[in-house]
Amino acid sequence: MDILLGIAATILEQLQKPTLAFLIAGMVLAAAGSKLAVPDPAYKLIVMLLLLKVGLSAGISVREADLVALAVPALLAAAVGIAIVLLGAGSLARLRGVGREDALATAGLFGAVSASTLAAGMAMLDDAGIASEGFIGALYPFMDVAALVTAIVIAKLGMARNAAAAGAAGGTMALGGGPRLGGVEKGLVPGILAETARSPAISALLAGIGIGLFARPDAVFDSFYEPLFRGLLSILMLVMGMEAWARLSEMRRVAHAYLAYGLLAPLVHGLLGLGAGVAAHHLTGFSEGGIVLLAVMAASSSDISGPPTMRGALPGANPSAYVGTSTGLGTPVAILAIPLWIALAGWAVG
Amino acid sequence: MDILLGIAATILEQLQKPTLAFLIAGMVLAAAGSKLAVPDPAYKLIVMLLLLKVGLSAGISVREADLVALAVPALLAAAVGIAIVLLGAGSLARLRGVGREDALATAGLFGAVSASTLAAGMAMLDDAGIASEGFIGALYPFMDVAALVTAIVIAKLGMARNAAAAGAAGGTMALGGGPRLGGVEKGLVPGILAETARSPAISALLAGIGIGLFARPDAVFDSFYEPLFRGLLSILMLVMGMEAWARLSEMRRVAHAYLAYGLLAPLVHGLLGLGAGVAAHHLTGFSEGGIVLLAVMAASSSDISGPPTMRGALPGANPSAYVGTSTGLGTPVAILAIPLWIALAGWAVG
Amino acid sequence: MDILLGIAATILEQLQKPTLAFLIAGMVLAAAGSKLAVPDPAYKLIVMLLLLKVGLSAGISVREADLVALAVPALLAAAVGIAIVLLGAGSLARLRGVGREDALATAGLFGAVSASTLAAGMAMLDDAGIASEGFIGALYPFMDVAALVTAIVIAKLGMARNAAAAGAAGGTMALGGGPRLGGVEKGLVPGILAETARSPAISALLAGIGIGLFARPDAVFDSFYEPLFRGLLSILMLVMGMEAWARLSEMRRVAHAYLAYGLLAPLVHGLLGLGAGVAAHHLTGFSEGGIVLLAVMAASSSDISGPPTMRGALPGANPSAYVGTSTGLGTPVAILAIPLWIALAGWAVG
Repeated sequence: MDILLGIAATILEQLQKPTLAFLIAGMVLAAAGSKLAVPDPAYKLIVMLLLLKVGLSAGISVREADLVALAVPALLAAAVGIAIVLLGAGSLARLRGVGREDALATAGLFGAVSASTLAAGMAMLDDAGIASEGFIGALYPFMDVAALVTAIVIAKLGMARNAAAAGAAGGTMALGGGPRLGGVEKGLVPGILAETARSPAISALLAGIGIGLFARPDAVFDSFYEPLFRGLLSILMLVMGMEAWARLSEMRRVAHAYLAYGLLAPLVHGLLGLGAGVAAHHLTGFSEGGIVLLAVMAASSSDISGPPTMRGALPGANPSAYVGTSTGLGTPVAILAIPLWIALAGWAVG
Repeated sequence: MDILLGIAATILEQLQKPTLAFLIAGMVLAAAGSKLAVPDPAYKLIVMLLLLKVGLSAGISVREADLVALAVPALLAAAVGIAIVLLGAGSLARLRGVGREDALATAGLFGAVSASTLAAGMAMLDDAGIASEGFIGALYPFMDVAALVTAIVIAKLGMARNAAAAGAAGGTMALGGGPRLGGVEKGLVPGILAETARSPAISALLAGIGIGLFARPDAVFDSFYEPLFRGLLSILMLVMGMEAWARLSEMRRVAHAYLAYGLLAPLVHGLLGLGAGVAAHHLTGFSEGGIVLLAVMAASSSDISGPPTMRGALPGANPSAYVGTSTGLGTPVAILAIPLWIALAGWAVG
Repeated sequence: MDILLGIAATILEQLQKPTLAFLIAGMVLAAAGSKLAVPDPAYKLIVMLLLLKVGLSAGISVREADLVALAVPALLAAAVGIAIVLLGAGSLARLRGVGREDALATAGLFGAVSASTLAAGMAMLDDAGIASEGFIGALYPFMDVAALVTAIVIAKLGMARNAAAAGAAGGTMALGGGPRLGGVEKGLVPGILAETARSPAISALLAGIGIGLFARPDAVFDSFYEPLFRGLLSILMLVMGMEAWARLSEMRRVAHAYLAYGLLAPLVHGLLGLGAGVAAHHLTGFSEGGIVLLAVMAASSSDISGPPTMRGALPGANPSAYVGTSTGLGTPVAILAIPLWIALAGWAVG
């Protein structure tokens, strides 16, 4: 009973946070038939600024980290991010009636990391007096970018396969027929990777990471990108709320699938992160606190870097699927699960 | 004599404040034939951010406000909006050669509120160090909707009466005969209310009020909406100055009646608002700043939400009459008159 | 040798500064085929905000400046602008196969000033902790207008002379005969001056200067224009980097003469500006930072106000010559050369 009350309180608290408040306001506006619209050029600039900031932040934190100590946990973090997306592609995406692109966008967000959930984990570790490595903040971009890119590439691959299959079935589009499909796919992955890297959203993210890594953008980051970030995100959420409402009807038949995924996936992903952390513990002496935070990162779903990236890279995916499942269900569950990872890490290490 | 000198000094001082300086700069640029232009998508984003900020600010304050204290000024604001339109229907609309529909569209815009003039008034009050109730932004829709609806309903009523009279006289236009007229009118009012609420400007304002009332957007308000407000307003003022100058020349083609109305009405309406504010001061202890802002709202004419509403609701009305009179004459007079209300409110209360 | 090493170290250090880092990131993105693009309306708003800020900054400082100290550098700036165009007319325009009109349009752009290169120079000086006169922004229009007008007038003069010569020789082209030539030339100069003042870029700059001079925009300047400046400049630099890379390929089609001019002229012009600055230093105590910025202005070529002015005034000139040489070569060289002027000014003065 106390657990249920705690869950209800956490959900209610999330609903009043600016991120969800603007999303809900957008849904209410759309439901009321509002003609409010953010002009497309303004929207594109906002997404570009958000992703430049996410990239700059990641690049700056990696630049300041101890690269030797960082290497093994970073590779494991990237592997966990990729594994989460593959897991989603093999479960949620295969359910009857669930759109493949919607499912992959959702899995991409669940693979990506929530900075605020990570911060909550750090605070709880601090309360429990468990130490962790200082470079943990630099791990999150590896899991984040790996998950987002994997989700986008698998989704684009599926679209390319469907286009090729449609061509083979109709017999009119002779290029890329049945026997040559495998060859097309081999050429497809690097092509889609390059295409993804060249897309406006990922380009802005990579440009930010590059500038953060190799230059000294700290002054412009502190005076411009950081202060504007939350405000620009609030406008994005308003727009995504309006879109989510418009496409909410698509969700009626598959709502139970997303409900189950949103409630269970954070726990499965957290165990994956915990396992990777324990492996790093035996390989490089990765700390107990580090194990907990890797589990927290894996369990969390992106509420900041993910939505603009998915909106930019997979414009056909339904925001009411991926934002609703991630921010509405995944984030509260991930926050409530933090004590579980603290208990399990203590048991695995001690 | 001292009061007049004080008013003159205040007006001269206001001319150097950013708000008016950018308006005047815009007029000078337009007069000099500058090709400077704020692109439409950028302009729309700026207006949306300004109205979200005004709404958030109002919602946050109403959340902590005495709703009993709000009730009386809100009713008075609606009454002032209706009175302004009735005044226009009884004066401008009765002048020889002035089209009744044109006159009512103009009176509707003069009864409606300019968010940017209100924002300018708030900025000038802030500069003068005079406090006002935080819920003033929540009074805006009461006066705005009351005036627009009254103007549209009276105009449509007149048209319906003329059609009925023509039908009775000619006997050829059988549709919408006498007995069904009442039903048409009853359906009109909620439709116009919904249309106004769905317009981009009012939607943004209502979204801001809703988020401010029911969520906790204080962090994003303090880090984004509040710091950007004055700068965005300066750009809006530059654009409005250029538009005001361009539309001043449009006025050559319309009657001197509009010139007289555009120059005098803001002062008469401002006095109406001032009177209502002083009444509220004695009834509920409404503040000196609140009296000024009620006068500013009453004196202002709608430059953002009004024109598209009128164009949609009264397509037969001539935009060079109502837009020219409102933006070309009413708005500059209303902005220049702000120091007058500051001086008169100080004299009436102090 | 120490000086050369110092210059090399300064250049390497500058590459990590936000301004150049974003330019280089833009070039890398363009080279990698990124689809990232700043929408045109967003770009126009950014340029307008940057030029308003430069103007406001100049106006505010000139309001408090020693106008006697301004007079000498202003006259020298105009002289440098004229000298650069005369130099181009005497070198590039005389090379075999180079069109006279193309060469003069190019020299005009190289004599005119790039607001963003100047802003980059100001940011780099700021980073280096070298002070300069606040009125430097007010020197800009003197060099800019002087160079554009001189280039256009010399080109138009040449065309009129050719037409007159052809008329005198063949007797068939009667228009614009000998006695009317002087009148045409007299009317041309004020027209070109007005056209430049009305262009969006110069309008925004002049509006900023006017508001800074005659009003009190300090509050909105400190809360909006100043904090946003570096961030908006970083976006402009990203765009300019992408444009510079794209236009580098345009240069394949034009003569090697433009390649040599685009690479060498900024250095020669910068030395001219440096010399004028050092002269002003001895005449009126012009600061070290001021010398650097006069060199930066002289070395820079116009990327915002110049191209549309040239396209309007000299429609026969080939844009792939003057825009390609200016934006593709001149601007990167001018930005890369900024540390050179910092080093040389320190050596000349210190």
